[in-house]
Amino acid sequence: MNYRMITYIMGQILKVVGLCMLLPVVVGVCYHEHHILLSFLIPFAITMVIAFAFTIKKPKDNTVYSMEGFVSVAASWIAMSAIGALPFVISGEIPNYFDALFETVSGFTTTGATVLGNVEAMSRTCLFWRAFTHWLGGMGVLMFVLAIMSSNDSRTMHMMRAECAGPNVGRLVSKSSFSARILYCIYIALTLLEMAFLMFGGVPLYDAVIHACSSAGTGGFSMWNDSIAHYNSVYVEMVVAVFIILFGVNFNLYYYLLIKKFSLAYKNEEVRVYFGTILLATGVITISVLKIYGSVPEALRRAFFMVASTITSAGFSTTDTGQWPVFAQTLLLLLMFIGSCAGSTGGGMKVARIMIIVKTGIRELKYIVSPRAVAAVKMDGKPVEKDVVRGATNYFILFMLLMAISVLILSHDRFSIEENLSAVITCMNNIGFGVGRFSPSGNLGGLDSLSKVVLCFDMLLGRLEIYPLILLFAAKRNS
Amino acid sequence: MNYRMITYIMGQILKVVGLCMLLPVVVGVCYHEHHILLSFLIPFAITMVIAFAFTIKKPKDNTVYSMEGFVSVAASWIAMSAIGALPFVISGEIPNYFDALFETVSGFTTTGATVLGNVEAMSRTCLFWRAFTHWLGGMGVLMFVLAIMSSNDSRTMHMMRAECAGPNVGRLVSKSSFSARILYCIYIALTLLEMAFLMFGGVPLYDAVIHACSSAGTGGFSMWNDSIAHYNSVYVEMVVAVFIILFGVNFNLYYYLLIKKFSLAYKNEEVRVYFGTILLATGVITISVLKIYGSVPEALRRAFFMVASTITSAGFSTTDTGQWPVFAQTLLLLLMFIGSCAGSTGGGMKVARIMIIVKTGIRELKYIVSPRAVAAVKMDGKPVEKDVVRGATNYFILFMLLMAISVLILSHDRFSIEENLSAVITCMNNIGFGVGRFSPSGNLGGLDSLSKVVLCFDMLLGRLEIYPLILLFAAKRNS
Repeated sequence: MNYRMITYIMGQILKVVGLCMLLPVVVGVCYHEHHILLSFLIPFAITMVIAFAFTIKKPKDNTVYSMEGFVSVAASWIAMSAIGALPFVISGEIPNYFDALFETVSGFTTTGATVLGNVEAMSRTCLFWRAFTHWLGGMGVLMFVLAIMSSNDSRTMHMMRAECAGPNVGRLVSKSSFSARILYCIYIALTLLEMAFLMFGGVPLYDAVIHACSSAGTGGFSMWNDSIAHYNSVYVEMVVAVFIILFGVNFNLYYYLLIKKFSLAYKNEEVRVYFGTILLATGVITISVLKIYGSVPEALRRAFFMVASTITSAGFSTTDTGQWPVFAQTLLLLLMFIGSCAGSTGGGMKVARIMIIVKTGIRELKYIVSPRAVAAVKMDGKPVEKDVVRGATNYFILFMLLMAISVLILSHDRFSIEENLSAVITCMNNIGFGVGRFSPSGNLGGLDSLSKVVLCFDMLLGRLEIYPLILLFAAKRNS
Repeated sequence: MNYRMITYIMGQILKVVGLCMLLPVVVGVCYHEHHILLSFLIPFAITMVIAFAFTIKKPKDNTVYSMEGFVSVAASWIAMSAIGALPFVISGEIPNYFDALFETVSGFTTTGATVLGNVEAMSRTCLFWRAFTHWLGGMGVLMFVLAIMSSNDSRTMHMMRAECAGPNVGRLVSKSSFSARILYCIYIALTLLEMAFLMFGGVPLYDAVIHACSSAGTGGFSMWNDSIAHYNSVYVEMVVAVFIILFGVNFNLYYYLLIKKFSLAYKNEEVRVYFGTILLATGVITISVLKIYGSVPEALRRAFFMVASTITSAGFSTTDTGQWPVFAQTLLLLLMFIGSCAGSTGGGMKVARIMIIVKTGIRELKYIVSPRAVAAVKMDGKPVEKDVVRGATNYFILFMLLMAISVLILSHDRFSIEENLSAVITCMNNIGFGVGRFSPSGNLGGLDSLSKVVLCFDMLLGRLEIYPLILLFAAKRNS
């Protein structure tokens, strides 16, 4: 394995993360929180020193294969998280390092699960950094590097493969650094648009920035203990719901719309199923919770927001779903696994992958009846490559196996099987809230350090879609 | 589809079931429970009339393909259950037909889940029938038919495929009616042996018959409310534990031992993993529960029995595992999914299938690193056919999808998500007890009729390994 190239890539990514730490410093200056500035400047300095040490000499051999791509992505995310947690610890706002690490991993992976009981006690600077990790994580810091570095495509394609979420059905454009820049622009534009919409509804600038960052990464960190419900405004809820749904769409779609290939955008089966699922789930849940809220508009408002928040894995909450009928709760649980579209900032297993899995299941039944007369699994009207099908089904298997292992390790802690399962599901799918004890009204504080580390690992597994992280730890054996 | 042949096969199976109903009549006469005899004689008469109507004319076209094999097996199991429930209803011992149906399906599928709060209130005749359904179901009534019917092999092989559990790694012998007869003899011999061992330990004849029948099917119905714990005897517990483990072994192994092919028996990777898992789980759980029981022998006794009872899906219980550490409970939950060996009377996903699934997962990781240098998945040192691997992974996917659908339907009832999940897991894996509310100390009474029907379906899905039942309901579309 080309270790020098891996550290070189890590160095490039850490440079970006380090520079991003200057943004909270600006926020701190604006809001006169001068006592907190050092908490960011020290990690900034450390990060930059490491980053320059890693990148001072360009490696002579700059070949990067899948393995190097995966490993450098995984190692970068871990390094990012380890460094990103420092400001919380130094400032004393999250004194325990494991808590701070959990919060940062939850941020970068856009999970949005928190160990904090009272977020309102935090400084504006730290709250900004917390929400900004969502924004950075959402599109993948690597995208920045890709957009900045002008490099040969064969190399970056491998990294795109590691970073971009979902089974690779249909590639965007061949020039990956060019396409990264396009996605990056769409991402910024959508974030700014949401910010504008929120401010139009009377939300202050700072609040708008926080929630737009959180929405963009479909993360779910808020600056209020009662999240979006704080504003008690249908308008704000609807803006957030619509935008997280938009951030959960495969970004290819926006690219197609941008280059006016409307027919290609319309043909996208995954996006249609995604919207269909949202509509159907909202309708069914509205009927289910009608009794609780009395009126259709109120039930619809609650149902729509929670469906959007759950399927996109944003994890914002306006409602304690623990009070909902079990049927509605079960439906939300299933939405967690489905997740958003591949190639979006959302979590879960991704709609495309679930579609392939369901279609494969149905195909298997047909195969049992008549082994010869069975067509291939199709997406967008075209047969899916065998490798993609195999990849999707095996991803599902690995996901379930890792879920089982995580629940087993968590069982040493003092919670019940159900609670452990709920915590693992929320972390692996990057949701941010679970069912039962860890439902929107709860938080993950109270877990011991080992449990927190396992859940950090699960969040990274979910965000990086398993392979990079596993390969990082298996690297020595395979090299 | 050859409907005539399907009803003909159903008729043959119903004849066997009908005749088996005369056994409880004998029991009733022996124990002077004359009031109950009619409750068995009436269903016996009905069954025989239907059976003869179905078999009076041999169909001219006696070709049976996969589809016919699957459908006739599924239809037979449903018919058997519907008829087997009648004695309970007519005798008034389980007045509600849905309860009686649940109990009978639970019997035939060797699940052992019960809706009864107090089994000791039942007559000896009904208790015998209840336990005997386990024995019948255990090996598959079809085996009887196969053993009796001397038919052409191409036909019966399709039915063996539908009936025999597990992925088909290594076929027994080519003459299926001959091999069925061998398995049948081993099954009877093992049952009689257990009966003898139990009686040697001072267990009365009737009790020994009941528990031997239950063990043979790895079912779990007992005649006592506190199950095997009633005897408060280490000897009895150990006999039952050892025999359910033996009934959970792939019966091919006994065949190999019988024909003195010891090396073939020793090479069987699945059986070794099965025993290894039992040893490992027992060891780890013993350590985990040591604090509760104070002494190693007591902890070992409890751990070994519950591990055996769980992995084989027997579902006998001597201990309320709800009081155990969550770690031990989680381990038991995983054992439920693993289940016993393919080609045994046990439930779960089967060790062989889990092995293929885990190996496929690991292979996928290797594939990601270097797509070209990856060997096929191996079992017993030989590469597994692609179709078997695809079958195992897709079985897992279908299993999980059906689990999700079942939990969703159950959520209309008045239980929590966790309880519904637990009930579905216990039924689909044919265990008989779950975790939480439905742990060994609880029962499934209190569910409404729709929930009971769904769980009956789940038990059949688990027992028949999904395909036959799904195909039965999809038959009309595909024919």
